[in-house]
Amino acid sequence: MDENKKTRAGVVGLGNVGKGVIQSIRENEKMYNDITLDCIISRRPKSVEKTLIDMDIIDRNNVNVYAMDENWQNAELDVAILCGGSARDLPEQGPTFAHYFNTVDSFDNHDHLPPYKDEETGNWRLGYANTMNDIAKANDNVSFISGGWDPGTFSLIRTLMAAILPGVKARGFYGLKEKGGLSMGHTDAIRRNQDLIEMGVEDARQYTHAKHDAIDRVLTGENPDLSKGDMHWRECLVVVKKGSDLEKIKDFIVNMPNYYEPYETTVEFVSQKKMDKKHSSMFHDGMVVAVGYTGDNNKAIIKYENLLDSNPEITANTLVALARATHRLSQEGASGAKTIVNVPIAYLVPYSQEELVKDFM
Amino acid sequence: MDENKKTRAGVVGLGNVGKGVIQSIRENEKMYNDITLDCIISRRPKSVEKTLIDMDIIDRNNVNVYAMDENWQNAELDVAILCGGSARDLPEQGPTFAHYFNTVDSFDNHDHLPPYKDEETGNWRLGYANTMNDIAKANDNVSFISGGWDPGTFSLIRTLMAAILPGVKARGFYGLKEKGGLSMGHTDAIRRNQDLIEMGVEDARQYTHAKHDAIDRVLTGENPDLSKGDMHWRECLVVVKKGSDLEKIKDFIVNMPNYYEPYETTVEFVSQKKMDKKHSSMFHDGMVVAVGYTGDNNKAIIKYENLLDSNPEITANTLVALARATHRLSQEGASGAKTIVNVPIAYLVPYSQEELVKDFM
Repeated sequence: MDENKKTRAGVVGLGNVGKGVIQSIRENEKMYNDITLDCIISRRPKSVEKTLIDMDIIDRNNVNVYAMDENWQNAELDVAILCGGSARDLPEQGPTFAHYFNTVDSFDNHDHLPPYKDEETGNWRLGYANTMNDIAKANDNVSFISGGWDPGTFSLIRTLMAAILPGVKARGFYGLKEKGGLSMGHTDAIRRNQDLIEMGVEDARQYTHAKHDAIDRVLTGENPDLSKGDMHWRECLVVVKKGSDLEKIKDFIVNMPNYYEPYETTVEFVSQKKMDKKHSSMFHDGMVVAVGYTGDNNKAIIKYENLLDSNPEITANTLVALARATHRLSQEGASGAKTIVNVPIAYLVPYSQEELVKDFM
Repeated sequence: MDENKKTRAGVVGLGNVGKGVIQSIRENEKMYNDITLDCIISRRPKSVEKTLIDMDIIDRNNVNVYAMDENWQNAELDVAILCGGSARDLPEQGPTFAHYFNTVDSFDNHDHLPPYKDEETGNWRLGYANTMNDIAKANDNVSFISGGWDPGTFSLIRTLMAAILPGVKARGFYGLKEKGGLSMGHTDAIRRNQDLIEMGVEDARQYTHAKHDAIDRVLTGENPDLSKGDMHWRECLVVVKKGSDLEKIKDFIVNMPNYYEPYETTVEFVSQKKMDKKHSSMFHDGMVVAVGYTGDNNKAIIKYENLLDSNPEITANTLVALARATHRLSQEGASGAKTIVNVPIAYLVPYSQEELVKDFM
């Protein structure tokens, strides 16, 4: 492919997702040769060089590294891939970068996507989707938001289900396997909670478990009413300082509103050594399932399931495919915020219409 | 909804899929109120009236009925939903209707979608996709082709898999349950074969069965080479005239090229009574599965599964959702042949961007 036609991507933030994006760009370059890594923008630019060496990025001299407070605005990018988290990073970085570049992100706070009431002040806030849409539109950029697996590919499937089975209720289950699935949001809710840190919490992991009897009930087609607690239970592993009040910590965790209070929750205290040895992997899994009826009361079950050894890496792979689509949308003159239901899926792959008809239909 | 803004749909052909489309339009009208049945175009217009009564279409006086040889060209349609089969009906009806109207169909002969060599003459033929694209473009219409479940929604998933896991090999398995899945194509290959009819065949059913050891091998991630016969086996139930040569019929079936020769095939002879009683349902199922790797060799499994009591009705439901999308594409000024990977999935549902962000992301 002509080097000048490749999508020049910038990676913003070099955590687990950012590293996955770099690996995925390399893989896409090998397989499809239509995207290339132009720069990395990081809060800790000094550690970036070390990471590039660790990752065996041989041509790292071709990769520009910017600190967040440098003039990264001058980079010549087709799309900035925002790899930060939804709690602290994206609410600030999303709008800033959407002003200058096309962007892709995996914003995953479902409640803060549409307009919402601020819990502290009670005031209405615009929400991430409208904010990104306005800023991207005003600057003639495309901002692809919420492009992970949920929200993301699972949202695509939910919409498809509503199209094929009008009015059907799609359900999401996570942690299907016996070991459950690692939830970063619920993990951080423990290990970054100031009260818990003061009580002695040093590290934590949270495994989400689907309740399989709830899945079975959904599959029967009876369309049951299911509360959050009917569908999942939560397993917490916690490392604490010597002498901490275990009962108090446990009590605090299981009663945390939204995160743990609605669920059956177990809390187990483990050593840091055991945590590092047994609980370092990033697997997660989940499925969307819809059970509806066609014609004369004929049952139809549609299931979409992901089983992932690395949660951040599948998010990274999805972001890179969406970067390709974002560049193409922008070249066609589109602007504003887009989600995965707003773009033809053909835009996520570099194939011609002839190849799509021949090899994918 | 304003009656004038509803999608006015015509149904072409009133077999199992056509009846399913009428039921689905009724369901969509109830749920979303944005599509309405305008007319039915049929080879047997006299039987249509009876079918409408049987289906309890109360306002059947508002539904125009045309014979195929009447002036249906004057109907005021936003989209013609072509419900015929791929072997005989669509190769003729597709181009004819695409000249006059936007169309939607479920053309499912994968080999005849792209340009192909005619088996009898050895000459190249244009293929369905190019034919429909040229005719629809020339007449400023949109023709949505191959909009069932495979090709159709399964094609969408295969493309999504290639985007998220570059270069991954998506596999399709059908007949996952113990009873297998009813294949209409393989059924007709027996009961409409002139040689077999002359040997005494009166009726037949073919159940496709997935080989679960092949699925297990794919799931391990070893990316095995699998022939057609490694992945599925075929179960045939056949009704014959008294005194037919059973061994000869069986031998003919299991050696039919493409259809049965590549597979382990069983043939069982049953009475018409047993066939009608035990084998009248239209269930089918199938899944697409891709097993790839992200980042540092971390396994990722993506599965999409459909379990369907009525194969023709799920096709019908998909066609109606695509009729909505086709009308919208046409209103936006698009023309030519489209497949499910060429249209944003949001176009398949009648929701606003605000509703999509709030309820589906």
